[in-house]
Amino acid sequence: MPTDGPVQLGNHERAIYVLGTARDAAKQIVKQYVGPAVARRRPTRTDLPLDLWGLRIGRNQRLWHGSIDLHELAERFGSPLHVVDGARLGAAANDALAPCREGAGADIFYSYKTNPVPAVLRRLHAAGIGAEVISAYELWLAFELGVPADRIIYNGPAKSPESIELAIRRGVHLVNANSLSELRTIVEIAERCATTVRLGLRVSFPGMWGGQFGIDAESTQVDEAIRVAQQSDVVDLVGVHVHRGGTMRGEGEWQWHVSTVLDFCAGVTERTGWSPTVLDVGGSLACPTSAGIGDRDYRLHRALGTDLIPPDPATAISIAQASRSATAMAAEHFGDRGCVVPAVVQEPGRALTGGSQMLLTRVLDVKDDVEPHHLVLDGGRNIADPLPHEYHQLFSVSKPSEPAARPYRLVGPICTPADVLYYHWALPNAAVGDVVAVMDAGAYFVPFSTSFSFPRPPIVVIDGDDVVLARTAESFDDLTALDRAAEERPR
Amino acid sequence: MPTDGPVQLGNHERAIYVLGTARDAAKQIVKQYVGPAVARRRPTRTDLPLDLWGLRIGRNQRLWHGSIDLHELAERFGSPLHVVDGARLGAAANDALAPCREGAGADIFYSYKTNPVPAVLRRLHAAGIGAEVISAYELWLAFELGVPADRIIYNGPAKSPESIELAIRRGVHLVNANSLSELRTIVEIAERCATTVRLGLRVSFPGMWGGQFGIDAESTQVDEAIRVAQQSDVVDLVGVHVHRGGTMRGEGEWQWHVSTVLDFCAGVTERTGWSPTVLDVGGSLACPTSAGIGDRDYRLHRALGTDLIPPDPATAISIAQASRSATAMAAEHFGDRGCVVPAVVQEPGRALTGGSQMLLTRVLDVKDDVEPHHLVLDGGRNIADPLPHEYHQLFSVSKPSEPAARPYRLVGPICTPADVLYYHWALPNAAVGDVVAVMDAGAYFVPFSTSFSFPRPPIVVIDGDDVVLARTAESFDDLTALDRAAEERPR
Repeated sequence: MPTDGPVQLGNHERAIYVLGTARDAAKQIVKQYVGPAVARRRPTRTDLPLDLWGLRIGRNQRLWHGSIDLHELAERFGSPLHVVDGARLGAAANDALAPCREGAGADIFYSYKTNPVPAVLRRLHAAGIGAEVISAYELWLAFELGVPADRIIYNGPAKSPESIELAIRRGVHLVNANSLSELRTIVEIAERCATTVRLGLRVSFPGMWGGQFGIDAESTQVDEAIRVAQQSDVVDLVGVHVHRGGTMRGEGEWQWHVSTVLDFCAGVTERTGWSPTVLDVGGSLACPTSAGIGDRDYRLHRALGTDLIPPDPATAISIAQASRSATAMAAEHFGDRGCVVPAVVQEPGRALTGGSQMLLTRVLDVKDDVEPHHLVLDGGRNIADPLPHEYHQLFSVSKPSEPAARPYRLVGPICTPADVLYYHWALPNAAVGDVVAVMDAGAYFVPFSTSFSFPRPPIVVIDGDDVVLARTAESFDDLTALDRAAEERPR
Repeated sequence: MPTDGPVQLGNHERAIYVLGTARDAAKQIVKQYVGPAVARRRPTRTDLPLDLWGLRIGRNQRLWHGSIDLHELAERFGSPLHVVDGARLGAAANDALAPCREGAGADIFYSYKTNPVPAVLRRLHAAGIGAEVISAYELWLAFELGVPADRIIYNGPAKSPESIELAIRRGVHLVNANSLSELRTIVEIAERCATTVRLGLRVSFPGMWGGQFGIDAESTQVDEAIRVAQQSDVVDLVGVHVHRGGTMRGEGEWQWHVSTVLDFCAGVTERTGWSPTVLDVGGSLACPTSAGIGDRDYRLHRALGTDLIPPDPATAISIAQASRSATAMAAEHFGDRGCVVPAVVQEPGRALTGGSQMLLTRVLDVKDDVEPHHLVLDGGRNIADPLPHEYHQLFSVSKPSEPAARPYRLVGPICTPADVLYYHWALPNAAVGDVVAVMDAGAYFVPFSTSFSFPRPPIVVIDGDDVVLARTAESFDDLTALDRAAEERPR
C-alpha cells in the first residue's frame, strides 16, 4: 500500500484498498487450502482419443491428420489456421441424409449461421442438404452457391422486406414467420407480388428460446396468425417451426422436444382444424465430442483449476437417429388422428459441422512470472469465441506424445483479460512456436470472429493427401479496404 | 406437459419438467409480487440531456445533430450506421493535448484497439496525438496513416517477432516488453539489427489487469528484466508501463493509480539504481456519459426490469485533468528524490473517442406477444457488443419529443438469445422503421463487431453541415471475397 505518496488518499480509496486486500487474502486462502481439497475430489481429465478425429502421432512425434503433418501445415499456410476435414464433413452429411434417402419423410437443412464458409456449404449441398438461412445475406449466399429455391428455408427475427420479397419471388421451400406482425408483412408482400408463399409459423415454449424468437405458443396470437394466413389466397400455410436453442444430447431430450411440438399441433388442429404438412423441429443437437460447460464446473475450473471433463461421444444422438425417431413419432401421432403425416425437417448446425474442423494456433510467448504459466497464443477468443464455456478437446500438435507436464493458462492475443481459452489445461512443456489444435471448431468459431487488432485466419480443406486453400487470410489491406473505398468515392 | 405423446418419458425428463415448472412458477411469483416492490424502491432513469452530444429536436419533431436530420441520414446511408461527430472528436483531442502544449511534461497516445477507424485516427493524429498499438496490424496501420515512428508506442502480449523488428528498425517511441521472455526476444532482435530500441517495462499490480499482461510487480522477474535490458548496448531502458484495465472515473482513483506507479518506481530505484524517463500510466479513464453496469444492477434490470441509471458526467476526470494531476505528482515524487522527472504518457481509449460516435439502428419488427414488447433492431450485439453491460444513452430518433410510452426489450437481429441490447428501456410508442440512436459508440463497438449473418455497417463523419462517408458498408460480395480469392489462386 502506498504510504508516503505525494497525495492524500480519501476514505473511499482507503476503503477500496482494505476491501481489496481482504478479498485477495480470502481468495489466497481458498486457493491454497480449500482449492486442493475440492480439486482432489473432482474428476481429472482423460483426453478424448485422437482417432475420433482421424488424427495420429507421426514418426516425427508430431500430430498428423492422415498423410498431413499439422505442424508443417501451420507453417505452410500460417497460424492461426482453420483446417476442415473434407472427408469427415462429407461422411457427416451422408450419415445425416441416410433416413431421408430411405424415404422416411425426413429432410435436412443446414443452419448457415453456424459456419458460413462457402467451401463447407458447397460440400453439404453437393450431398443433398438444404440451406437454413436467417438473414438477407445468408439468403443471397445460398442463391450464390446455386442452391435451388426449394432447398432453402428462411428463418430469423430480422428478415428485411426486400429479402422476404426475394424469397417469395424465387419460391423458397419455407418462409417461417417469426411473429404475428412479421407474418402480416409476409402476407402483404406475397399479395403485392401475387406470388404464393409457402409459410411456416415459428412458435416458442417455456424452457426454450423465446422472447424475440417465435410466437409464444400459449398466446392468442397463434390462432390469430393461422387465421390471417388462411384468409390470404397467396399464402400456403404448410409449416410449424420450433427451435429449442438449448443443446440436446440424449434421445430422451430429443423425444421430449418432438412430443412438445406434436402436442402443440394436436391443440392447434383441435382449435382451428389446420394441420401442418411440414414439421420443422429446428436444430440444437449436440456435437458428440464437444459440450457446454455448466456454470458450477466453469467457476471451479476458473477459480481452483479443476479439470474440464470431456463429454462421452456415445451419449450424443445422431442426426439420423433423431430423424428416425421424430418421423416415427410423427407418423404415429398424425396417423392416429387421421391427418396427413408431415415431413420432418431438421436444421442442424453444430451436430453436422462442429467436429469436421479444427483451429491451429501457435504459442507466441510462455509467460512464467505467475502461476499457472500463461501460453500466449496467436488465436484467442477473437476467433474462438465459444471457449471457455464449451469443452473443446485440445492437443499439442508439436509434442502430442509427451506427457502433460503442468497446467497452463491458455490466453489469446487481444488486450482484454477476457481473452482466455481455458484457465488451466495441462499440456507437455511448451515453448514459443509450439502449435496447439483446438478441436470441433466447425460451429460458431467463424461467425463470431472479429478483426479485433488481428486479421482473421485462412481456411484450408484437407482432401485425402491434398490440402486446398478455401479462404485466404485477411490481410492488413483488407482491414482498411472499405475505408479506402469510401475515400475514393466521388463526393 | 405432454401427457399422451407416443413416447414413454423417462424419470429424467419428468424431473426436468417438474423442476422447470417449479422454477418458472417461482420466477413468476418473484416477477409479479417481489419485483414491483423492489422496483418501486429503485431509482428511475432520467435521460442525459440531448445537448451533451450537440443533439436537438428539429422542427419536424425528429432528432437532429446541428443541421443534420439523423432520420434522413439513416435513410440516405442505410441502417445501421455509425455516425462520428467530427467537431466533437477534434475538440476532445485538443482538450486532451492542452497540458502537453503547456509544457507540462505530458503526452497522449491513442489506444488504436478502442476504435480502429482510419478517419477517426487521422483526426486524432492531425491534432498531435500519438498511436498506441498492440499488434502487427495496428503498427502497420499507424505507419500507413503517416504517423512518425517517434509518435508510436508498441504494447500488448502478442507482438510477432517480425513486427518487433519493424518497430525497432523504424525507431518507435517505446516498445513496452510484456514479459521477461518477450523482453529477451526484443533484446535479441535489437542486437541482431544492431539498432537501439527504446524499451519500456510493463508491470502489473493486484487489483488491475494481470495474468497475461505485464510482469507481476512483486515477482523477482522485474529486477531480472532491468538487469537483462541494462546489459545490452542496444537497449535504452526508458519506461515503466502500468495499465490498470478497470475503468477509473474519479480523481481519487486516478491519483491512487499514479501513486501506485510512483511507489513502484521508488522501490525499483532503491533496489537497482534505475529510474524511468517515461512514465506510461496507460489508459482506463471513463467516457463521461457512459459507464459499466454493476452485476447487481444488471441482474435487477434483467430480471425485474428496473431502470439502468446514467452516470453523472461531472464526476468523470478529464484526460487533461489526469495529465495535470499525474505530472504534478511525478514532479514532486522524482524531484524529492533528486531524479530526472519523467514525461507522463497516457494511452486513453474510451475517454477520448467514446462520446464522439453514435450508432443508428432501425426497428425491423415490434413483437407484441410477450411482455415487455420486443423491438427487433437491425443492429444488435453483433455491432454493439458492450451493451447491456454498459450504460449507453438511447434516444428515439424518430420521436424524440414524445413521452416514453412503455418499456421495450431491445434485441438485435442475430439468432441467439444473448442478442439483447437492453432488457427493459422505456421509449415512445415504437413502429417498424423507427430509428434509435445508441450514444457513445466510439469505444469497442467497431473492433468487437462481427459479420454474424449480417454485414458490418458504414461509417460517416459529420463535419459542420457536411456528411462524409468514411467507411462503406460491408457488401454481401465483401463477405465472400476471401473465399473467391482462394478459389482463383493457381493451385
